[in-house]
Amino acid sequence: MKSRHFAGIPQIPFEGTGTDNALAFRHYNPDEVIDGKTLKDHMRFSIAYWHSFRGVGSDPFGPGTIVRSWESGKDPVSVAKKRMDAAFEFFQKIQAPYWCWHDRDIAPEGSSLKQSNKYLDAIVAHAKKLQAQTGVKLLWGTANMFSNPRFMCGAATNPDAHVFAYAAAQVKKALECTLELGGENYVFWGGREGYETLLNTDLKREQDHLAAFMHMALDYAKEIGFTGQFLIEPKPREPTKHQYDFDVASGIAFLRTYKLDKKFKFNIETNHATLAGHTFEHEIEVAAAAGMLGSIDANTGDTLLGWDTDQFSTDVKGLTLAMVSILRAGGLGSGGFNFDAKVRRPSIDKEDLFYAHIGGMDAYALAFKTARKILADGKLSGFVKDRYSSFDKGFGKDIEKKKIGFKDLEKIAFKLGEPKPVSGRQEYLENLLNTYLHG
Amino acid sequence: MKSRHFAGIPQIPFEGTGTDNALAFRHYNPDEVIDGKTLKDHMRFSIAYWHSFRGVGSDPFGPGTIVRSWESGKDPVSVAKKRMDAAFEFFQKIQAPYWCWHDRDIAPEGSSLKQSNKYLDAIVAHAKKLQAQTGVKLLWGTANMFSNPRFMCGAATNPDAHVFAYAAAQVKKALECTLELGGENYVFWGGREGYETLLNTDLKREQDHLAAFMHMALDYAKEIGFTGQFLIEPKPREPTKHQYDFDVASGIAFLRTYKLDKKFKFNIETNHATLAGHTFEHEIEVAAAAGMLGSIDANTGDTLLGWDTDQFSTDVKGLTLAMVSILRAGGLGSGGFNFDAKVRRPSIDKEDLFYAHIGGMDAYALAFKTARKILADGKLSGFVKDRYSSFDKGFGKDIEKKKIGFKDLEKIAFKLGEPKPVSGRQEYLENLLNTYLHG
Amino acid sequence: MKSRHFAGIPQIPFEGTGTDNALAFRHYNPDEVIDGKTLKDHMRFSIAYWHSFRGVGSDPFGPGTIVRSWESGKDPVSVAKKRMDAAFEFFQKIQAPYWCWHDRDIAPEGSSLKQSNKYLDAIVAHAKKLQAQTGVKLLWGTANMFSNPRFMCGAATNPDAHVFAYAAAQVKKALECTLELGGENYVFWGGREGYETLLNTDLKREQDHLAAFMHMALDYAKEIGFTGQFLIEPKPREPTKHQYDFDVASGIAFLRTYKLDKKFKFNIETNHATLAGHTFEHEIEVAAAAGMLGSIDANTGDTLLGWDTDQFSTDVKGLTLAMVSILRAGGLGSGGFNFDAKVRRPSIDKEDLFYAHIGGMDAYALAFKTARKILADGKLSGFVKDRYSSFDKGFGKDIEKKKIGFKDLEKIAFKLGEPKPVSGRQEYLENLLNTYLHG
Amino acid sequence: MKSRHFAGIPQIPFEGTGTDNALAFRHYNPDEVIDGKTLKDHMRFSIAYWHSFRGVGSDPFGPGTIVRSWESGKDPVSVAKKRMDAAFEFFQKIQAPYWCWHDRDIAPEGSSLKQSNKYLDAIVAHAKKLQAQTGVKLLWGTANMFSNPRFMCGAATNPDAHVFAYAAAQVKKALECTLELGGENYVFWGGREGYETLLNTDLKREQDHLAAFMHMALDYAKEIGFTGQFLIEPKPREPTKHQYDFDVASGIAFLRTYKLDKKFKFNIETNHATLAGHTFEHEIEVAAAAGMLGSIDANTGDTLLGWDTDQFSTDVKGLTLAMVSILRAGGLGSGGFNFDAKVRRPSIDKEDLFYAHIGGMDAYALAFKTARKILADGKLSGFVKDRYSSFDKGFGKDIEKKKIGFKDLEKIAFKLGEPKPVSGRQEYLENLLNTYLHG
Ligand SMILES: [Co+2]
Ligand SMILES: [Co+2]
Ligand SMILES: [Co+2]
Ligand SMILES: [Co+2]
Ligand SMILES: [Co+2]
Ligand SMILES: [Co+2]
Ligand SMILES: [Co+2]
Ligand SMILES: [Co+2]
Repeated sequence: MKSRHFAGIPQIPFEGTGTDNALAFRHYNPDEVIDGKTLKDHMRFSIAYWHSFRGVGSDPFGPGTIVRSWESGKDPVSVAKKRMDAAFEFFQKIQAPYWCWHDRDIAPEGSSLKQSNKYLDAIVAHAKKLQAQTGVKLLWGTANMFSNPRFMCGAATNPDAHVFAYAAAQVKKALECTLELGGENYVFWGGREGYETLLNTDLKREQDHLAAFMHMALDYAKEIGFTGQFLIEPKPREPTKHQYDFDVASGIAFLRTYKLDKKFKFNIETNHATLAGHTFEHEIEVAAAAGMLGSIDANTGDTLLGWDTDQFSTDVKGLTLAMVSILRAGGLGSGGFNFDAKVRRPSIDKEDLFYAHIGGMDAYALAFKTARKILADGKLSGFVKDRYSSFDKGFGKDIEKKKIGFKDLEKIAFKLGEPKPVSGRQEYLENLLNTYLHG
Repeated sequence: MKSRHFAGIPQIPFEGTGTDNALAFRHYNPDEVIDGKTLKDHMRFSIAYWHSFRGVGSDPFGPGTIVRSWESGKDPVSVAKKRMDAAFEFFQKIQAPYWCWHDRDIAPEGSSLKQSNKYLDAIVAHAKKLQAQTGVKLLWGTANMFSNPRFMCGAATNPDAHVFAYAAAQVKKALECTLELGGENYVFWGGREGYETLLNTDLKREQDHLAAFMHMALDYAKEIGFTGQFLIEPKPREPTKHQYDFDVASGIAFLRTYKLDKKFKFNIETNHATLAGHTFEHEIEVAAAAGMLGSIDANTGDTLLGWDTDQFSTDVKGLTLAMVSILRAGGLGSGGFNFDAKVRRPSIDKEDLFYAHIGGMDAYALAFKTARKILADGKLSGFVKDRYSSFDKGFGKDIEKKKIGFKDLEKIAFKLGEPKPVSGRQEYLENLLNTYLHG
Repeated sequence: MKSRHFAGIPQIPFEGTGTDNALAFRHYNPDEVIDGKTLKDHMRFSIAYWHSFRGVGSDPFGPGTIVRSWESGKDPVSVAKKRMDAAFEFFQKIQAPYWCWHDRDIAPEGSSLKQSNKYLDAIVAHAKKLQAQTGVKLLWGTANMFSNPRFMCGAATNPDAHVFAYAAAQVKKALECTLELGGENYVFWGGREGYETLLNTDLKREQDHLAAFMHMALDYAKEIGFTGQFLIEPKPREPTKHQYDFDVASGIAFLRTYKLDKKFKFNIETNHATLAGHTFEHEIEVAAAAGMLGSIDANTGDTLLGWDTDQFSTDVKGLTLAMVSILRAGGLGSGGFNFDAKVRRPSIDKEDLFYAHIGGMDAYALAFKTARKILADGKLSGFVKDRYSSFDKGFGKDIEKKKIGFKDLEKIAFKLGEPKPVSGRQEYLENLLNTYLHG
Repeated sequence: MKSRHFAGIPQIPFEGTGTDNALAFRHYNPDEVIDGKTLKDHMRFSIAYWHSFRGVGSDPFGPGTIVRSWESGKDPVSVAKKRMDAAFEFFQKIQAPYWCWHDRDIAPEGSSLKQSNKYLDAIVAHAKKLQAQTGVKLLWGTANMFSNPRFMCGAATNPDAHVFAYAAAQVKKALECTLELGGENYVFWGGREGYETLLNTDLKREQDHLAAFMHMALDYAKEIGFTGQFLIEPKPREPTKHQYDFDVASGIAFLRTYKLDKKFKFNIETNHATLAGHTFEHEIEVAAAAGMLGSIDANTGDTLLGWDTDQFSTDVKGLTLAMVSILRAGGLGSGGFNFDAKVRRPSIDKEDLFYAHIGGMDAYALAFKTARKILADGKLSGFVKDRYSSFDKGFGKDIEKKKIGFKDLEKIAFKLGEPKPVSGRQEYLENLLNTYLHG
C-alpha cells in the first residue's frame, strides 16, 4: 500500500532498548523467532477499529477533539472506504497482524436495515481487498447493538419482540460478514443487555430471550459454515446499570444454565475485570479453569475511576501476571490480544495513535517474554505445586478421586490432631516476581 | 423462662405507630394474622448468635467495648450455658421464633477436636432444652471454619489435605448438631475459601476440592437423615482478597459446573450483595430466576464503605423492593430473615441490642406489608407484564417457544421496518413506588 | 404564555396524597404558607436548562434518544429561542420559580468568540423578556468551559495562556449576562480544571492560575456591580481523572490558601458528594461549619455506579437528613434547589420530564416538612446537645474557651480516673428517624 | 547486640541483582554513597513497631496466627522489654536506621493512667539504652488514642470532656517520651476523630475541639523544648465511617481554618491515599504544593479492596512516580520512609518479616535511583516546563504576576482568535516512563 494518510511516519521498526526513537519498538520484534514461531504469531495483536478509527475523543462532557485528515468524502460510503484505507495503512505500519470491528464502525448506518446491509456489503468487499493486499486478518467481528436508540432498552433482551427481530437480522448479517472476511471468532458484548432499573424489568424473561438469541446464532453459524469461536465479553455495568454478563463467573452461570457452555468461550477485557472488582488475571484464571479462555481485549482501567477508561496498558507487571496465567492455560488458541483501547482525549495527533500502540505492544511483548522466563525457571510454579502436594498422595489423593467421605476423614482428623500451619509466603513470592521484572 | 439477664426490659410489645415507647414495635405485630398466617410465621425472624451474643464491639483498630453481665462462670462450658440462657431470654423478649449459630459461637473450642466436639455436645443438649422451653427453633446451623488459625489458608480449599480432613470432621459434627436441634437449613459461608494472592494459588484445584467437600456433605446429610436445605452464602471478599462464592451468579456457576445445583440454594446477605457491586434485590432476583432463593441474612452495609459493616437496616424503601422480589418468587420456603447484624461499637448497652432488633424487625415488617400492597394493587407488575406483551403473541411467542430462527426474524425485521421506541418510564415508576412508602 | 410545546399537559396541580393523577403534586403545594412564607419561596426550586432542554439521552455508548418537537428552526438562534419558549412553558407548568444555565446551553456557539457573544446577547434578551412574562427568575448562571475541545486540558488551568485568556473573556461575558438577567448567584464548576495524568502536569502552577482567575472574576464582578454570591461546585473526578475542587473540604483548602474564602460559598451536588466518598449531608455539614453553604444541585447518584448519573432523587429519607442539616445551618440564603438531573436515556417522552421533576419536587417538599417536624420536636437535636453538655461547664467550657492546657488537663485526668463509656445510641436514633418517615 | 531472637538469620547483606539469596538486598545498599550521602541516609527507612512487633495476624474474622518466640516473661513489662530487644535486633539486621511507635505498642497499659505512664517510663528507658547501643534512632512517636474502649467515640473529638482530658494527658506524656528518645517528628493519626453517624454528632464543635487540642499540643511542645515536626496523617475512614483528616486537602482546610498551618506537615500513607480516591503521588503533590510534605508511611493497599490492607509495596513503578514528586519537592526533611505495613495473616514465620521488609526496601531504593535518573535526564520535567512556557512571558507572565484582568484578557482573546489545541502526549510520557523502568 502506498503511504497516504500517515505520511512521514514509516513502518514502526524494532530498535531494542538502546534506541531514543519514540516511534520504534523496544521489546516487540515481530520477526523474532521463539520456539519456532515469530513473536508476531505468538502475540496475535489486533487493532480495534472503533477506538482507533472511529473514536474522536468525545466524552460525556464534551464532543470529539480529534480531527483526522481522512475523514472526508462525497458520501458516507466513500468516507468509510477512505477511513479504512487509513486503517490498513496503520495496521501495516504498526505491524499488527489482526483487526476487529463492529458492523456499524466500518460502515455507515442507512435509513433502513436493508440499506445498512448494502453499505456493509460494499465496505466488507473493500475490506476483503485490503486484507488480501496487506495480509492483515480479521480476529473477530461483532454487531453494535448498543448505540442506536432502538436498542436503548436492550437488543436480545429488549421488551419489544420487534427489536429482538431487528437484532437477530443484524447479527445474521454480521456473522455473514465475519465469515466473508475469514474472521476467526465472533464476539458478543451486550452493552445494553441488562437493566437500568428492576422496577420495569423481568430479569428471568430477559435472560431466557438472551439465551434463545445465542442458540439462534449458533444454529445460523452452523448453517452458513462459520466455524469460528463464539465469545462472550463480560462487563459488569456501563452503559446499563447492570449487565447480565457481569463477569466471567456470571457468564459461566448463564452458559451452563442455558446449555450454551460447549460453544462459547470468553473475550476478557482488562478494564471490565477491574470494574467487576476482579484482577485481570483472576478473570483469566476463572475462564481457564472452565476451559473457556478465548481472547483478550487488551487495555487497562484506572481502579480509582469508576468507568471504562479503555486506556493503553503499559503496566508490565500486571501484564506479566496475566501472561503467566494465559501461558499456563495453553494460550489463547484462535484468540489474540486486541487493543480495545483509545488515546486520551487530549492526545489528538496521529503520532499519539502510534505512541499508544507502541507502548501497549511493547508492554505485552515484554510481559510475554518475562512470563516465559518465569515459567521456564519453574520457581513459582514449583512453589505452588509443592504447596498442594498433600493431595498427590494418601488420603489427599483419595479426596481428589472421590474415594473418601466425612466419616473416614473424621477418623483421620482425630488421629492426626492439630494441623501444622504453613506460611503462605506471599511477600517472598512478590519479591521473587520482582526479580524477573527489575533484576 | 425467668427473666434474669435482661431484668427491667419486658417482652417487647406491639404498640403501633402511636406509641412513644422506644422499646415497643410500631409495625411488627407478631400475632397479626394475614392470609391466615401470623406475621410471626410470615417473617420467620431469626437472631444471629454470633453478633448478638458473641460480638463485643471489637474492630481492626480496637478490642471490644461491650461488657455483658452474663459473661462469667467457673469454666468455658458453664459460661457458654449462661450466655445461652441470656440469648434465649432475648429471643423470647424480642419475639423472634428462630435463631442461627456457628458451632464455635455456641460452644468453646477445646484443646483437641474431640474435646471441642464434647463441649459442643454439652451445649447442644442445653440448647435443645431451651428450645423446648421457649418454642424458639433453629433456622440454620453452620461451622465456623474461618477464625481459627488452622484455616488461615482455607478449609475445604486449604492446600493441606490435613486441614481438609479437619474441616470435614467439623462439618460432619455441625450437621449432626443441626439435625439434633431440628435445624431447617444448613449454611456454608466460605470466609477463607478463596485466595489472598494468585501467586501461591491453584484456583482450579481449590475449586475442585471445594466441590468434593460439598458432595461429601450432601452424602453425609443423606446418611444421617438430615433433610434441611443446604445454602451457600456468597460474599465477594473479606476476609480473603477473593472468595470463590463471590455473588449469587458465581455460586450458580460453581454449583452447575460441579453438578451441585439441584441440592443447594442461596442465603443472601444484603451487605454481601452491595460489596459485590449489586443491589440486594438484584441478588434475590438472580437466585429466584434460578429457583435457588433460600434464605436472607438481614442487614445492611454502607455503600460508601468498603467492608462488611453488618448494620441493622432501617431502610424501608430498599427492603420493600427486596420484599416485592421475594414475594413474587413465592417466598423463602424453609428460609427466614436472620439478623446477621451487629450493634455499632459504641452501642454498648443491653437496650441497644433491643433498639437494633426492634428497628430491623419493624422495617422488615413494614416492608413486607408495603410489598403486599404493591403486589395486590398490581400497578407495578401490570406495567412490567404489559411491557413484554409482544412476547405473548405472534413471532414474539415463537421466539420464546424456540420455533423461529435468524432467517425468519430477518424477514420480519425487513417487513416491519424501524421499531418504535417506547419510554422505559423509570421516573414514573420511582414516583409510583414512593406513593406506597410516603403517600 | 400560550401553551404550545407541552399541549395536553396542564400546569401541574397540587392534589395531595389522595390523588391517582401521576401528573399532580402529592407533597409540593407551592402556595402552602409555612411560617408566613409560601412553600414555593421556601424551596426555591430551579430547573437546569442543560439537562432538561439540551439533554437528549446520549451516553458514552450511544447518541441521543430523545427528540423534542421544538428542536427546529431556520437558524441556530431561532432554534435556541423556540427551545427557550418551551423551557419557560415548562418552568411555569412545573411551578418552579427559578432556572439556571450555562452560556453555551442557552445560545449556540459561533465561529468566533465575538459571534458567540452576539448570539448570547440575542438569547439573553429573549430570556429577559420571558422572565418578565412569567416571573421565573435566574438562580444562577455559569460558563461552560469544559465541552469545547479548546478546553480539553482545562480552562483557567490550561497550560496555554491563550486558553486562559479565552476563558477569562468567556466568564466576563457570562457574568455580564447573569447580571443582566438578575441572577442571584454565579457558579464555577471546573469540569476540566484538574488533570488526566500528573506526568504532564504542574499541579501547583495550575492551582495558582485557577486562583488568579477567581480573583479576576471577583474584581470584574465588583466593577460591573454584580453582587450575587459566587459559588464553587466541587466534584472529585469526571470528566478529568482528578478535579481540583474534589469536595467541599478541598474547596475550603483552596479558598483559604488563596485568600478567596470570604467571597465564595459552595454549590453542593448530591451525586458529586457520593462520588467523593461522602454523604450528601456530610458535604452540607462541612460547608455549613465553614459558613460556606450556598446552594444545592439536587439530584442523586447510584453509589454502586462510579460515574455521575445525575438522577432525580426520590429518596425522602436521605433528603430529610440533608434538609435537617440545611435548616439547622439557617437555610440556603440566595441559593436554591436546582434540579441538576436528567431523565434516564429510555425516558424519551415529554411526560417523563414532568414525572421526573414532580417526583423530585415532591420528595424535596416532603423532606422539608419532615425535617421541620424533626427540628420542631427537638428530640434529635436535644439528644445531640445533651451528648456534648460536658463542654458547657467546668473544664469542658475552659477547653472551648482555650483557658486550659495539657498540664492542667493531666491533673484532671489523674483525679477523675477512667472515663465512663456512654452509648452512642446509633440504632435508637435511626429508629427515631424512621418514626418521622414511616410512623 | 547479641543475636538471640533471630538466630540463624544474619544481618541482611546487599548482594545485588546477581544473587539467588532471598535474604539479601538486591537494590538497597545502605553504604552506597550518592551525592556524598549514603543510601541509608537518603532513604531514612523506619520500622513500624506496631505492625512488626505487635501485629499477630488477626483480622475481623479471626484472631492472630503469628506466634513469636520472644512473647513471654514474668510480667507485662518484662515481656515488653524482651520484645523490644527482639525489635532492635531486627532493626539492626534489616539495616533500618529508624523506628516509630505508638505509646501503647511499646508499653503495656496499666490499670490507671499513672500506672500506664510508669510502665511507659520503664520501657522508654529501655529503648533509650537500646538506641544508644545500636545507633537506631526514633523517626517519630505517637499516642494510640483509638484502641481503648474509652476512645470509642473519639479522643480530642469525644463528646465527653473527661475523655478529652484523658487524651490530653496521654499526648502530653507521649510528647515527653518522644523528646526523651530524640524523636524527630510527632504524628497525629485520628483513627476515631470522626463520626459513625451524623445523627449523634456536632461536626463543627468536634472540629473546634480537635483544633483546640492541637494548639495545646503545640504549646506544650514549646514548653518542654520539643522542636520536632508535627505531622498529621490523613485517612478517609476506617475505623470510623468518616475521619476528619480525610485526605491531605481536608487536612489543609482544617489547618488553615484553625491557624495551625504554620506548624504542621503531613505524614502521607500510600494506602490512605488510595482509600481516599487519590493516587499516592497526588497526595504528595498536594502536600508539596502547600509546603507541607513531611513524611511517608510506606505501604500499599489493594485498590480492589475497600479497607486498609497495609501491605508491603513492591510496586516499583508507582513508587518511582512518588519518588519523582518527593525529590522534586526537595525531599522529606526530618521525615523518612516508615514501613507502616504488615505481613499477610498466613505469613507466620520470622523469615516472612524479613522478606517483607527486604522487598519493600529494595523497591523503594530502586524507585529512588530510578527517580533520580529521570530527574537527571530532564526529559520528563523538560516536557512539563515547555508545556507551561506561555506563562513565562507576555500576558501569561502578567497573569501570574496578577497584572492583568478580565477586560484586557478579553481584548487579547478577541485578537488572538481560536487557540490551537496541543496534544497532552500522555501515551508518549507513559512510554517514556517505562524506558526508565524496563529499558
Ligand atoms: Co472490549
Ligand atoms: Co472497555
Ligand atoms: Co451473613
Ligand atoms: Co456480612
Ligand atoms: Co451540578
Ligand atoms: Co453531576
Ligand atoms: Co500509617
Ligand atoms: Co494504613
